[in-house]
Amino acid sequence: MKIVFTTRLPEKAFDGLALHTLVLPETDCFTADELMSHLSDADILVPTYDYNITEPMLQSALRLQLIANFGAGFNNIPIEWCRQHGVVVTNTPIPVIEPTAEQCFALMHAVAHRVGELDSRLRMPDYGGIRFGVMHNLGRSLFGMTLGIIGMGRIGQALARRAVAAGMKIVYHNRHRLSSEIEKRYDAHYVSFDELLRISDFVSLNLPYSPEVHHLIDSAELQIMKPTAFLVNTARGAHVNEQALAHALRNNEIAGAAMDVFENEPHISADLLQCRNAVFSPHIGTGTIEGRIATCDNIVENIMAYLNGDFSRLNRVV
Amino acid sequence: MKIVFTTRLPEKAFDGLALHTLVLPETDCFTADELMSHLSDADILVPTYDYNITEPMLQSALRLQLIANFGAGFNNIPIEWCRQHGVVVTNTPIPVIEPTAEQCFALMHAVAHRVGELDSRLRMPDYGGIRFGVMHNLGRSLFGMTLGIIGMGRIGQALARRAVAAGMKIVYHNRHRLSSEIEKRYDAHYVSFDELLRISDFVSLNLPYSPEVHHLIDSAELQIMKPTAFLVNTARGAHVNEQALAHALRNNEIAGAAMDVFENEPHISADLLQCRNAVFSPHIGTGTIEGRIATCDNIVENIMAYLNGDFSRLNRVV
Repeated sequence: MKIVFTTRLPEKAFDGLALHTLVLPETDCFTADELMSHLSDADILVPTYDYNITEPMLQSALRLQLIANFGAGFNNIPIEWCRQHGVVVTNTPIPVIEPTAEQCFALMHAVAHRVGELDSRLRMPDYGGIRFGVMHNLGRSLFGMTLGIIGMGRIGQALARRAVAAGMKIVYHNRHRLSSEIEKRYDAHYVSFDELLRISDFVSLNLPYSPEVHHLIDSAELQIMKPTAFLVNTARGAHVNEQALAHALRNNEIAGAAMDVFENEPHISADLLQCRNAVFSPHIGTGTIEGRIATCDNIVENIMAYLNGDFSRLNRVV
Repeated sequence: MKIVFTTRLPEKAFDGLALHTLVLPETDCFTADELMSHLSDADILVPTYDYNITEPMLQSALRLQLIANFGAGFNNIPIEWCRQHGVVVTNTPIPVIEPTAEQCFALMHAVAHRVGELDSRLRMPDYGGIRFGVMHNLGRSLFGMTLGIIGMGRIGQALARRAVAAGMKIVYHNRHRLSSEIEKRYDAHYVSFDELLRISDFVSLNLPYSPEVHHLIDSAELQIMKPTAFLVNTARGAHVNEQALAHALRNNEIAGAAMDVFENEPHISADLLQCRNAVFSPHIGTGTIEGRIATCDNIVENIMAYLNGDFSRLNRVV
């Protein structure tokens, strides 16, 4: 089998596929042209979640049977085209859960306790004007606060587990209400989208992207939020109108924001970057060393299960 | 009663003491001379944890009955002198627990997920050279890692509660081994100090300061730690030899450090501040708005309980 990777990944993570021909870029990523030339006789494609696979790229990939995506999201794949052409698509939903919930929780703490701001000021001359003192540099507690989780899937629940231990109350909104057993586990209350925005001290986006939820958080939604509330996005950038968010932060219409994802990655709007009541990370939600190794392992498992015809063990999305 | 405060605190937090005479500085703190002049006929002194009260300051405070300290630590108070002179000392151990455990957890996440570093680089021209990408900017997971807690008191246990929910394994070292009931609650294993340093992926200091634990973490201890491990200090600065830590960080003898407290506050050694594998905050462990309000409330409770002779409700340390 010829297995083509869009992106440079550690080759030794794929030792389990040593019987096959692996084609990886020397550095970073293949260009679209390079990828298409490799795909002409490829059996399996391994794209990373940040590499956009288009229909034209796949049109001459006549032998392609499987796209084993690196990541839980698969909005980088033309799903409908794959369905029509009998190409199986798999993802890696499990290994991303804990690292993403961790990054979400890291950013929640960071924006409330002003971690980025204070660390960068302490490194400046004269400690950036910071004075130590009982009433200086105060942050905000998570303990006792209400966390509103939009998208209560596996990552949302991994976040809820942490938040309960941190003394937070959980409300959530989801396409489908969860079973009472799961709700009880986190003492989580199902509320409408507007109610969640209205009562939460922290609003966290943990839902997958689809065109229906484009700009789910826009000016109107930011105005429903409490002026003391924080927005956290570790899902997909297009969930939030970045200009509207920058405007709300600049005018203190909300207390702060913590963003791992952006509308036009790798671009971040300059307006947003100037907001000191926010903290930013470069889409590293799933990006721990341990998480990356586990994801590579999951891709190997998906490919082996596919090749062995063991479809029950596939993380299949198409 | 005349109640003297060392430090400017929000006056309305002390409405419960309105029948008494409250003396607070106009801004920040009294000088030592100012404080001594106010103490000459004071009944109660309210120092903040960062204000060093010396024996000479107290020698002419002939009416002083109670020192109601703001904070859990009381190494700013000459305890032996108070004992000898029949001055009662109270602290505020409860309201500091959750904010300090939060700051500790915030910094643990921040150093492992590189929150401070990445946020500050993204705000620089050309995003400080940051490239988005699957194998870029990787952090380290907390999930599955071993957290060694030195000092398993109330703050240590509040940290353990969070860490268990984050998927961490807990080992601890303490003057006294905890009951098996408490150990079971966190699945926490009691180990020797050296063993803790040897096996932990994160080492967190959560013990009070006393001269016996001065430089508890020095060069020798840093060399016992794994080169992949992180040190977190949200207790007291003098627990750690700051020069030895800077040396270890510079030479990657440990993976990183997260420090809320420093040996010579408000000074932080320039060597340490240059380490990019570390994150710093200006002693804000207890410093959330909600935590400060709860601490003021606790001081009012301590003073009222003392005045009412209800000693069972005092947080008495002497």
